[in-house]
Amino acid sequence: MIVTLNGSTTKDEVSRLCNQIENLDLSATLLSHRNDIALVLDGAITSDKVNSIRNWPQVAATEEIHSPYKKASKQWHPEDSIIEVGNIKIGGGHFAMIGGPCSIETYNQLEKTAAYVKESGGNALRGGAFKPRTSPYSFQGLGKDGLDMMHEIGQKYDMPIVSEVMAISQIELFEDVDMFQVGARNMQNFDLLKELGKTNKPILLKRGLSATIQEWLMSAEYIMSEGNENVILCERGIRTFETETRNTQDLSAIAVVKQLSHLPVVIDPSHAAGRRDIIESLSLAAVAAGADGLIIETHPEPERASSDGEQSLYPEQYRELTEKVWKLHQFMKQINTKN
Amino acid sequence: MIVTLNGSTTKDEVSRLCNQIENLDLSATLLSHRNDIALVLDGAITSDKVNSIRNWPQVAATEEIHSPYKKASKQWHPEDSIIEVGNIKIGGGHFAMIGGPCSIETYNQLEKTAAYVKESGGNALRGGAFKPRTSPYSFQGLGKDGLDMMHEIGQKYDMPIVSEVMAISQIELFEDVDMFQVGARNMQNFDLLKELGKTNKPILLKRGLSATIQEWLMSAEYIMSEGNENVILCERGIRTFETETRNTQDLSAIAVVKQLSHLPVVIDPSHAAGRRDIIESLSLAAVAAGADGLIIETHPEPERASSDGEQSLYPEQYRELTEKVWKLHQFMKQINTKN
Amino acid sequence: MIVTLNGSTTKDEVSRLCNQIENLDLSATLLSHRNDIALVLDGAITSDKVNSIRNWPQVAATEEIHSPYKKASKQWHPEDSIIEVGNIKIGGGHFAMIGGPCSIETYNQLEKTAAYVKESGGNALRGGAFKPRTSPYSFQGLGKDGLDMMHEIGQKYDMPIVSEVMAISQIELFEDVDMFQVGARNMQNFDLLKELGKTNKPILLKRGLSATIQEWLMSAEYIMSEGNENVILCERGIRTFETETRNTQDLSAIAVVKQLSHLPVVIDPSHAAGRRDIIESLSLAAVAAGADGLIIETHPEPERASSDGEQSLYPEQYRELTEKVWKLHQFMKQINTKN
Amino acid sequence: MIVTLNGSTTKDEVSRLCNQIENLDLSATLLSHRNDIALVLDGAITSDKVNSIRNWPQVAATEEIHSPYKKASKQWHPEDSIIEVGNIKIGGGHFAMIGGPCSIETYNQLEKTAAYVKESGGNALRGGAFKPRTSPYSFQGLGKDGLDMMHEIGQKYDMPIVSEVMAISQIELFEDVDMFQVGARNMQNFDLLKELGKTNKPILLKRGLSATIQEWLMSAEYIMSEGNENVILCERGIRTFETETRNTQDLSAIAVVKQLSHLPVVIDPSHAAGRRDIIESLSLAAVAAGADGLIIETHPEPERASSDGEQSLYPEQYRELTEKVWKLHQFMKQINTKN
Repeated sequence: MIVTLNGSTTKDEVSRLCNQIENLDLSATLLSHRNDIALVLDGAITSDKVNSIRNWPQVAATEEIHSPYKKASKQWHPEDSIIEVGNIKIGGGHFAMIGGPCSIETYNQLEKTAAYVKESGGNALRGGAFKPRTSPYSFQGLGKDGLDMMHEIGQKYDMPIVSEVMAISQIELFEDVDMFQVGARNMQNFDLLKELGKTNKPILLKRGLSATIQEWLMSAEYIMSEGNENVILCERGIRTFETETRNTQDLSAIAVVKQLSHLPVVIDPSHAAGRRDIIESLSLAAVAAGADGLIIETHPEPERASSDGEQSLYPEQYRELTEKVWKLHQFMKQINTKN
Repeated sequence: MIVTLNGSTTKDEVSRLCNQIENLDLSATLLSHRNDIALVLDGAITSDKVNSIRNWPQVAATEEIHSPYKKASKQWHPEDSIIEVGNIKIGGGHFAMIGGPCSIETYNQLEKTAAYVKESGGNALRGGAFKPRTSPYSFQGLGKDGLDMMHEIGQKYDMPIVSEVMAISQIELFEDVDMFQVGARNMQNFDLLKELGKTNKPILLKRGLSATIQEWLMSAEYIMSEGNENVILCERGIRTFETETRNTQDLSAIAVVKQLSHLPVVIDPSHAAGRRDIIESLSLAAVAAGADGLIIETHPEPERASSDGEQSLYPEQYRELTEKVWKLHQFMKQINTKN
Repeated sequence: MIVTLNGSTTKDEVSRLCNQIENLDLSATLLSHRNDIALVLDGAITSDKVNSIRNWPQVAATEEIHSPYKKASKQWHPEDSIIEVGNIKIGGGHFAMIGGPCSIETYNQLEKTAAYVKESGGNALRGGAFKPRTSPYSFQGLGKDGLDMMHEIGQKYDMPIVSEVMAISQIELFEDVDMFQVGARNMQNFDLLKELGKTNKPILLKRGLSATIQEWLMSAEYIMSEGNENVILCERGIRTFETETRNTQDLSAIAVVKQLSHLPVVIDPSHAAGRRDIIESLSLAAVAAGADGLIIETHPEPERASSDGEQSLYPEQYRELTEKVWKLHQFMKQINTKN
Repeated sequence: MIVTLNGSTTKDEVSRLCNQIENLDLSATLLSHRNDIALVLDGAITSDKVNSIRNWPQVAATEEIHSPYKKASKQWHPEDSIIEVGNIKIGGGHFAMIGGPCSIETYNQLEKTAAYVKESGGNALRGGAFKPRTSPYSFQGLGKDGLDMMHEIGQKYDMPIVSEVMAISQIELFEDVDMFQVGARNMQNFDLLKELGKTNKPILLKRGLSATIQEWLMSAEYIMSEGNENVILCERGIRTFETETRNTQDLSAIAVVKQLSHLPVVIDPSHAAGRRDIIESLSLAAVAAGADGLIIETHPEPERASSDGEQSLYPEQYRELTEKVWKLHQFMKQINTKN
């Protein structure tokens, strides 16, 4: 249950209310959003208890919660969240066009990429320094050195940088990274989520390969319940029987999430498709469906990429796509504005 | 193997070639497309045989076939097919905006729907007269009476009509219907497909609930191999573990099919979503992805519909969606035209 | 609602009750099973109506129905069904060990197979005469000639024969076949199911590739609602993302079906696995799980089979497996009998 | 490539060979198994290089590797692995019957369970102290206190204990635990796997909810590549569209894994089924299929369990099941022994 308090409730009164709630054998979590204060109650909530709570003078309203997530729910936070990532915003009409290689390989490779990403109209740079690889014998990434290169290049081209964190022990190495990425395989690595929840850096939370939308929102809740509300959801395809594509991109997730949550949704067509030739079609579809951003793999020489080359766009393809994406994004704003 | 013949090859020469091919223990199927004539060869094709065939004077070119489907393949028919359905065209830039109720219930219900579908900008009418229902005890449709109503109303509002055929015995009842629909459950009802292949009416072939894209194209091939090349593919969601939606719409199928085949692709977001509130998002995504049409359920009073009410758009929603769809379709043509 | 009538209720009384039920705006279907008579009521069943029905003198009991299927439900028919197929019984402790080739190719091939199937302990013969093939260009089976061969060989080796029917028009050709098989692709070919429901021959109903257990039981209900209650369910694997096997055998379906229905369940490990080397493991698992039979592909020379060779057992493998299956089946009876 | 060396090869010779291999621009990993020594080579292996390597006097044989995993592969280690867990063995004919509650709740609850598990014939005790819960607001387990209770009770009833480890930071708390369990959600938490690979304690590695068998073996390889070869695989159901069961148990995985790997396979029917009434059927199926063990949830009072109550067996059910399992296990040994 959400108990909204009057705007004038003092801190002391809140403490007293919390005690009273404990006396009812319930637990209370304090939510504060803008000027509103509310308490989320857990435990055996009987109608007796609800009635007594409603009678307290500081209580403005009570509302049942329909979902197992709270902070991620649109119920408590009806307007779209806008997350600041370095010098850009994502959500609430602000669109992210994130580009870059799967893996950071060399300074030169990353700088070349950053240069054409920026010039094409991209506004954030991605790149993997720690790589989750199915095989222990595959290239595992440049690690901290990769992050350092990325920081320097991000600064030079004035773009925020995003990179995947795979373990709690790596968190401290991400000081200069603007947004953590949590990979699909770690979507339910709850200890990692909780630790990230204690930072205040934005998190790009990828959907697990077979995660339901509800589980994905619950994982966002794990982060948010620790205090960090800067979560951006990223759909990267779910596992099905189809073999023409690496995974099946679930674009219905955009509208479904927007019914349930205030968090922005970014689409990753590169990992969903696993092939370069359908990235443009999926990207434009995502924009039209209402996505808040795209994260796309591109490489100066895809055929030489150390990983995921077959799904990386050539520089020229990235340029063309970005141009279309921005035009379409503007157009969608127009047709979705009612007069 | 595809053996393309010189344009000047006579009918007699073709017969003689076919005999020679049989003497090589191969079978030949004649394909003719525009002014081109080709033979598709099957059997144990050795390099010896290929060499001897290449030497025949009427042979312009030989080409290996990379896919198990032939007539449906882009290899043999590189330009997009344009299918005529009544007074509209579908494919190659022509867009179908098909609307109507899941089930035809009464003359009045269908006419009301047709009126606002037409007025909103819809250009074809759908409606079920024979309904495939999971339960033998559910409403099974009005049958032939429903088709008659539909014919009359289609004429009145000058829109082609589309309805599902479930069995060979029903084919003759569809004389006045402009396009057969083959439902997802019948995608591999091969005897039905073959019979439909002997007609020359367009077929809207829905993808099976767990059909791969290749199986779907093979089912198109079943129809086409009997002579009817007027096949339109319809994606209606595949079965996954996600429960927020009835099925998962696979919008990547649009671009994948367009790499493999010349056949138009129409998207059915209503059955994929199973809920009205995300139809607009999926529809606009489909247009941006390059679909050749949409088939959408709408009902004058969805809450009173005899089936699928929860996924049917209200008249006003259908109107708004159709307006946006046409605007977006125009816009996509613009940004996809290179100067 | 199921309304069970007193054993002494006369035919006239039943008619009168049916009239009364119609006057309540409900419809009634008569079920008779052994000496019991019951009426299944459909329509808007209010508590008023239930009360009035309970007061009728011929009514022994009323019971709500919890499932959308009725005749297939264990609720109405608590003991296991035993289906007679030629000279064998299936269900209620009677086990079917059905073997044979995917396709009937020649008289000699089928006779050889029948000989070792019988000698190994198999008690029924399978073989495809009409083959549902993904490609229209693949071998489509010997048709009626194949059925004739099978009939003769079945007689000679004193085994009932099972073959797949793909279309209504083929039904009459199956006069000498002991059991129809409905393939996975036709599980929701409702018109075919209804026609088969008008015969009185046993039906082996395969589960669709992505059919839920409830949909499978509803398809059984389609057959049974027309009068033919001789339905045997056959699990043949469902479609998942796993690629080591052709499909994923769902052995939990055995116990789940036995909670819901009285119909026998036969397991087809050949199509589920798609590879010969794991058939024995899956077969023994199925027996231990409580299956009522196995249907297994075997061929005198699998590497020469016209279809499914890679999943067909060699004669010697079939012999060994059959021996183990019968031993295990006996053993399971023992350990499942409580003293 | 695997290069098997003569038994008499000295340590110095091995070093020298490794240098020579590096000179060929290849890398070598030393594998030693019993008295055999082999080198696994990686890099661009040309036929020239293979020929030169074959000519070295210490080389007994060379063999191509067909799978991306090495230490987990049956190719290098053809006989079944037998893993010691406390006072029991698992694999190679040794069967584990692991029982216990989902969560450790109280000392009393766990002791009661241990008592009837032992008395029924169970030979290992499971219990969750750290619980991966979809919701951050659900009960997260007793932590270290739970492990301490378990250790004491395991000692008292002379059974090895198994519990789930969720994070690297927890590893040191598991000193007294006989086997780590890695949960399905952490199957690709590669950093955790690598740390566990540095211990020498057995690991029960659950299959991810949508992991392919190959990915599962690759995760085993992550552990083994760090030195810990005591890995036991655990199938706990994969995610499909079926809703009658929580997941779909993939029993074909048993035989498939046994074709590919030497590692033992344990089946967890409790999480696959998510319902108590089909556990017995699945368990007996697993034994007949050739599983090396079962891990089953049971609770003295399932309806009061803090988690997973609906899938936990009652004590009496556990007793009956265990009795049948041991009888069947003995019987399977008999019928699988050829004379």
